[in-house]
Formats: sequence, C-alpha cells, structure tokens
Amino acid sequence: MEQTKALLAVLQHRSPWRRPVWFMRQAGRYLDEYRRTRAQAGSFLDLCYNPDLATEVTLQPLRRFDLDAAILFADILLLPQAMGVDLSFQAGEGPVLSPVRTEADVNRLRREEAAADLTPVYETVRNLRAALPAHVTLIGFCGAPWTVATYMVEGGSSPERLRARLAAMRAEPWFDALMDRLIEASAAYLAEQVKAGAEVVQIFDTWAGDLGDGLREKYVIRPVREIIRRLREKGAEVPVIGFARGIGAAQLQFARETGVAAVGCEAGMPVSYMRDVLTPEVVVQGNLDPLAVIAGGDVLREGVRRLLTLPKERHIFNLGHGFRPETPVEHVQEMVRLIRSEDDAG
Amino acid sequence: MEQTKALLAVLQHRSPWRRPVWFMRQAGRYLDEYRRTRAQAGSFLDLCYNPDLATEVTLQPLRRFDLDAAILFADILLLPQAMGVDLSFQAGEGPVLSPVRTEADVNRLRREEAAADLTPVYETVRNLRAALPAHVTLIGFCGAPWTVATYMVEGGSSPERLRARLAAMRAEPWFDALMDRLIEASAAYLAEQVKAGAEVVQIFDTWAGDLGDGLREKYVIRPVREIIRRLREKGAEVPVIGFARGIGAAQLQFARETGVAAVGCEAGMPVSYMRDVLTPEVVVQGNLDPLAVIAGGDVLREGVRRLLTLPKERHIFNLGHGFRPETPVEHVQEMVRLIRSEDDAG
Repeated sequence: MEQTKALLAVLQHRSPWRRPVWFMRQAGRYLDEYRRTRAQAGSFLDLCYNPDLATEVTLQPLRRFDLDAAILFADILLLPQAMGVDLSFQAGEGPVLSPVRTEADVNRLRREEAAADLTPVYETVRNLRAALPAHVTLIGFCGAPWTVATYMVEGGSSPERLRARLAAMRAEPWFDALMDRLIEASAAYLAEQVKAGAEVVQIFDTWAGDLGDGLREKYVIRPVREIIRRLREKGAEVPVIGFARGIGAAQLQFARETGVAAVGCEAGMPVSYMRDVLTPEVVVQGNLDPLAVIAGGDVLREGVRRLLTLPKERHIFNLGHGFRPETPVEHVQEMVRLIRSEDDAG
Repeated sequence: MEQTKALLAVLQHRSPWRRPVWFMRQAGRYLDEYRRTRAQAGSFLDLCYNPDLATEVTLQPLRRFDLDAAILFADILLLPQAMGVDLSFQAGEGPVLSPVRTEADVNRLRREEAAADLTPVYETVRNLRAALPAHVTLIGFCGAPWTVATYMVEGGSSPERLRARLAAMRAEPWFDALMDRLIEASAAYLAEQVKAGAEVVQIFDTWAGDLGDGLREKYVIRPVREIIRRLREKGAEVPVIGFARGIGAAQLQFARETGVAAVGCEAGMPVSYMRDVLTPEVVVQGNLDPLAVIAGGDVLREGVRRLLTLPKERHIFNLGHGFRPETPVEHVQEMVRLIRSEDDAG
C-alpha cells in the first residue's frame, strides 16, 4: 500500500500516482467543525493535549477535501513548555512565555528528556496512524530551534524579535546553549513522533528570514542539519520537510546544505525560483498565497495554474503560509478541484 | 567636478574614486542633534515642511561621517497628503490617514498637479544642492505606488496589509485607479525634485514583498518602470535606485524589468545572490543589517568585510534597512572607518 501515498512517493523520489496536496493550517478556524471542537476542548492548549479531540480536528479537513496528508494537530510551543517554560495563550494576544534570557534561565531547561513528557502528542499520532486512509501520509512536526528560541527569548510574539536577533548576532553563550538544548529536544521529540507513526516530519522556521549571511548558517541551517543527523542516529529514516519562511533567495542554500528532502516555499517566492531550487535530492512544496484562496475566482485559478507548471513528481502542492480564519470553505473545495483536474486530464 | 561624486559614478557605470557609502535613515533619531532640531520644529510633519530645518537635519550626518550622499529629509506620505488625504502622526502610533477604499475616494484625489504643492520639499532640495560639498551626491526620493497605496487603503500602518493586498489581488477598479494616480503624481514629484537639484532618486517599496507572481509585475515592477518612463519624458535623466524590500529571490526580475540603475537589497539577502543580480546595467546597494551596527565589534567587522567582497565599481554600501534610534554613533563611525580602510589599502 506504501506506493499509494503520493506525498511519500515524491519525497522518496518515486513517481506519485498524482500530485500530492496538503495545506498548512488545514485543520483550523475556517472550519465550523473545528470551532465547535475547539469550544468543547476548553483552551487551545487543552485541545493540543487531548488526544481524542486533537485527532478529531486533524481528521476534519480530510473528510471535506481529497488531501494526501494529515498533519498532527499541536503547537510548536508545546516543546519549550515541556522543557520547563511557563506557557499560556491569551485570547487575541498570542502566546505568553516565561522569558529565557540568562545562563541561569537556560540551565533550568530540560534537554531531550523533555520529549518524554509529550505523551498526549504521541497518542494523537498513534490514533491518527490507525485512523487514516491508506493513501494519506501522516506528517509530524516541530518548530525550528531559531523560531522557538525567538518566542522563548522575547517571552511571546514580537513584531521584530530584536532581543533574540541581537542575542544571536552577539553569539551570547547563553543563547548558543539555548539553541543546543532546542536541537537536542527537537530531535528527540520528532523521533518519538516517528516511533508513534509519523511518516514525514516538517520543521517550521517561521522567522528564518530574520538572519543574514553568517547567522543563517549558524542558527537556521546547522540546527536543521543537526536535527536530521540526530534523527538518523536514533534510527528515524523519515523524509524531512524544511519550511524556512522569509528566506527568499537563500532558499537554494537552505535546500543544499540542510539535508532536507523538501523545502517549503513562502508565498511570494517566484515559481521560476522554486524551479531553480529543485535538485535531484530536494523537491519543493508550496506556495499559493492564502489570500488568493480568500479572493477566489480568477485569482485562485491563475495561482493554481501557475503552480501546476511545476513537475508533479517534484512538487507538493501547498500554501505559502497557513489558511486564515476567514477563508471560505467553498474556495478550498474549488482549489482542490482545480488541482485534481490536472490528474483527470492526464 | 562631476567625476568626484563616487555615487553618481557607480550609477553611471564610470569608475568611482572610492566605494560610495550612504545609509538609509542616516538623518534620524540616533543623532542627538537630530532630536534637538526635531524638538525645535514641533511635529514631525512641521520638520518635513520646514526647508531650513529639513536642510539642517539632512546635513547633520555628513558633518559626523565621511559619506558620499545626502538624502532629502521628507516622508513618503507627504505626496498622498498633497493628493488630498488627511495625514497626521500620532506619537508612538505611526501615521494616520483618511482611508481610500472606494471609487469616490479615489476620484477626489489629485493627480500630478498635487506635486506642485510640495514647494517646501523643493526648497529643501535647492538648499541642499547649494550647501553640499562637491563629492556628495544629492538623492531625492518618493514611496513606490504599492507601498504608498497600502498606507492609503489601510488608513495607516498595518502588520499584514490585508485590505490592500486583497484589493490588489481582486484587481478592484478603484484600486487600479489609485495606482495610476500614484504613478502620475510620483513621477511629477520626482521630476520636480530633479528640477530643484536632486541628482539621483530612490523609490522606496517597503512592502514589495507582499506580492507574488502576477501581482508583482502589475503593482511593483510596472509602476516603477512607468515612473521612470515618465521621468524621462519630462527630461529628467537621473539614475533611479529601486528599493523593493522583502522581494527576496524576485530581486533579479525586479532589476531586469524596471529600468532602475541600482537595486537596494534588503538585510538578509545573501551577498552571493547580490552578486548574481549584478548586470552590466544594474548595480547593487546594501545591505548590512542595522542590528549589526547596534551589536558592533566582530559582528560589524564581519558584516562590513563580507560586503567589501562586492566589486566597488558596482556596489553602493548601505544598510539593508534604516538605522534604528538606539544605534550607537561610535559604531557608525567605526563602520565608516572600516569601509574607508579598503580605499586606504588600495
């Protein structure tokens, strides 16, 4: 049955039976049924830590749309929480974390042993693996060390992440120690997800674009490469998708130097450049603007058409960023229909 | 004396006597003398519209640092104000504009005749041209139509500019009409600056990275090309620097298709990619991270060193984004010393 999974086929350089499609934030607030389950769960973190409900919301988009992958429902900040950081989500305010800004703060954080605590996440993964149809690939994920570190250093979201960027730039020893702990813990966390049944993992580096030459190698590329090395050491042979958002013209370098099987491309990245990034080893994923799905009509059609010019053996159809809550469900249906019509024609 | 202007030489494909250097927001809050003049002026807009004080703040960084260009002190929102939009700056809140969101709103806006009202700006340009040393090039500027339109549509700053992006995506007729008026008014505004003495103009497209394939051509590339065409029609032959921030891997396309003499490169853009963007027609400007100037020390030295590997006949040293208010003046001095030491050695 393995060859029926189009996503896995593309990532393993085998010919897929159709172009694989999934969407970032495909489980989310644009779906009524998600909002109902979310209300039932209590807080957002309650939902993440409830295997039954997290399984349910992961499966919801697959009941509506003909997709090739499910992505574990969780949050990139569960791992720092397990490492010892206080975490809460304030309505409309985003995450609030106890800040990590000194050597003492870092020394208090747990390393890879933190991953062992995230048992509800692994239970969700096991549930999903049992529940998913044979053609659907299960994706696990974590935040990239740089992105997670920005939230830890800033104590939450921050428009410019100046404190984290200055700490990185100055190579503060406590910051480098924080990155090392995050690399260790992230590798252990992903390895556990794989043990529980994740077939692919994606590493989300939302703020990769913060770092220029020199820092990019140290805090974006090396951590991803190191996580992959540790995964292999632990016997986890799954393909890794790296999503280094905002990286622009450094995507090529990221693709070549990390060891990822695929690179997620941000919205706005030219399709012609995505074509340049393709190598025999690395496929591309992305990158329809989520706003094109809100706009619908010709804009959506044209955006899909442009991406279908990428070879379907080397491309995973996705958005360039997650769905927004105001996305009309009918536009998502239309988008999937447009993508699938290519296979009908072929 | 013309050949003593290093910036102009590089933009005109002549050999400069040294690598030209200037900095975005070189006149600004990181300088004590700026803060004093600013307090004396009253509001920020009072400062922009006071030719004596605007001249003074433009000249201030040149008294401290050995730079190759002065850039007119003004704001990209003066032009929409002249077109008929209400504008104010709230302390700590950024600009507030009367929003433009309908055909009626657009029809009320003045076109190129708006430029005639900005006489204090042209007086500042004339003052500067008379005051500047012979080796310093005077740069005029305007906001790019897309960026200015985002402020007009949103009614101010906005973290994601969703309303403007959706209007562009949907090709709303009123939005296209707004862009046309901005193109006309911007070309007239720049032509007046050139008439008053600006030797180079820069077009700031801060939010160019908002737009992907298809929209980029329509709302970023075409407007800049069209402004340049109109400038030439009006007899203004000055070189144009295009700064399309956030454009990432589309910089190459922007450089090739707009007709600019130079592209400003954002912080984070790999120096190797800047080298790829260089063509016989287009030179690169940028792109030291302003945070590296705050950090100082090895970070600053290494960042400067990396940029000095670009050929000095084809590169204008600058930041990748404007100076931040907390920038230590001694670090700016050190940066200029590091750049100049290349010429001493050569």
